[in-house]
Amino acid sequence: MNTPHIEFWFDFGSPYSHLSAQRIDALARERGVRVIWRAMLLGPIFRNAGWSGSPFQQQPAKLAYMWTDLARQSAKYGLPWTHPSAFPRSSLLPARIATAFCDESWIGQFCAKVFALNFVHDTEIDSVDAMQGVLHDLGLPADTAIARAQTPEIKQALRDRTALGEQRGLFGAPSFLVGDALFWGNDRLEDALDAACDQT
Amino acid sequence: MNTPHIEFWFDFGSPYSHLSAQRIDALARERGVRVIWRAMLLGPIFRNAGWSGSPFQQQPAKLAYMWTDLARQSAKYGLPWTHPSAFPRSSLLPARIATAFCDESWIGQFCAKVFALNFVHDTEIDSVDAMQGVLHDLGLPADTAIARAQTPEIKQALRDRTALGEQRGLFGAPSFLVGDALFWGNDRLEDALDAACDQT
Repeated sequence: MNTPHIEFWFDFGSPYSHLSAQRIDALARERGVRVIWRAMLLGPIFRNAGWSGSPFQQQPAKLAYMWTDLARQSAKYGLPWTHPSAFPRSSLLPARIATAFCDESWIGQFCAKVFALNFVHDTEIDSVDAMQGVLHDLGLPADTAIARAQTPEIKQALRDRTALGEQRGLFGAPSFLVGDALFWGNDRLEDALDAACDQT
Repeated sequence: MNTPHIEFWFDFGSPYSHLSAQRIDALARERGVRVIWRAMLLGPIFRNAGWSGSPFQQQPAKLAYMWTDLARQSAKYGLPWTHPSAFPRSSLLPARIATAFCDESWIGQFCAKVFALNFVHDTEIDSVDAMQGVLHDLGLPADTAIARAQTPEIKQALRDRTALGEQRGLFGAPSFLVGDALFWGNDRLEDALDAACDQT
């Protein structure tokens, strides 16, 4: 395939992934780049580093700063933002749905809505109720989609994908892969998209 | 004092602090902002978080990425860059000199030259020889300056400054303080300077 493309690897619990998820489609369209959405789970990756939660939680001052920075960055981008009352939120079910339907035309909209639930509407995302709401909003058969996402094949596919991401050098999210070139963090989204254009 | 100003907190061993040190004077001048150079030691701060080195060293993949990112960012800024053969380098003596002479007109040039030793010329910086070279380059009385930097008062002043930074919310470097507003990371340098302008 010769269309320039970028892999966007994310965890629905990651607030900086939220900023990229809300921005990537418009920025990619401007550049004629196709986005490949790659849900993953940061939990196993952080546990491999010896941590029990987000790296931001290793330093209380860093976590406090993170919330300030997220509010500032959201304002800069003109994006709505709510400091979530729970962090990090479990993201297992939405990650399984995003894995099961990663090639569907609605995947980007689905992901943006899940991130907005977490970081704009401050609600839990790892629940059947929450996912039914998002899928219904998109006019999709929610029960069928959720059942598919909970099959052993999809559960394994998500585990495999996370392991593959780690093998390819990912250590956090959001991460962008342009071929084998890794770009990490919402601050590098534009650089990664520019690299995707240059690749053609 | 009403001139807009910014505090630039750094460790001479920090590669992202190097990027800011090489950029801050020109960017601040454009905006009419005065830079207050604040050398600190990240070692005690990272030890308080339970780490023995840089947070990047907690994940080998993250450390590998950091070097790629630094080369890319340096190229983007048009700055020379050499992957240092030792990391992180001890920065005690230059930090003491920068503490002793923090209000001198040559402090910015001194700091930029020390960072260049580490990240362009790939040489050790925590040595009397290296510091004599930098101070001589600036036409300064090197031996007197180094002797002053090694007095008990200055050693304590650097410890106190690092502790004060931590009390004010610093957890890494580079960090920028505009009043009590903290901005962390070379990626936030421009935002911090803009905030300094808005503050007047």
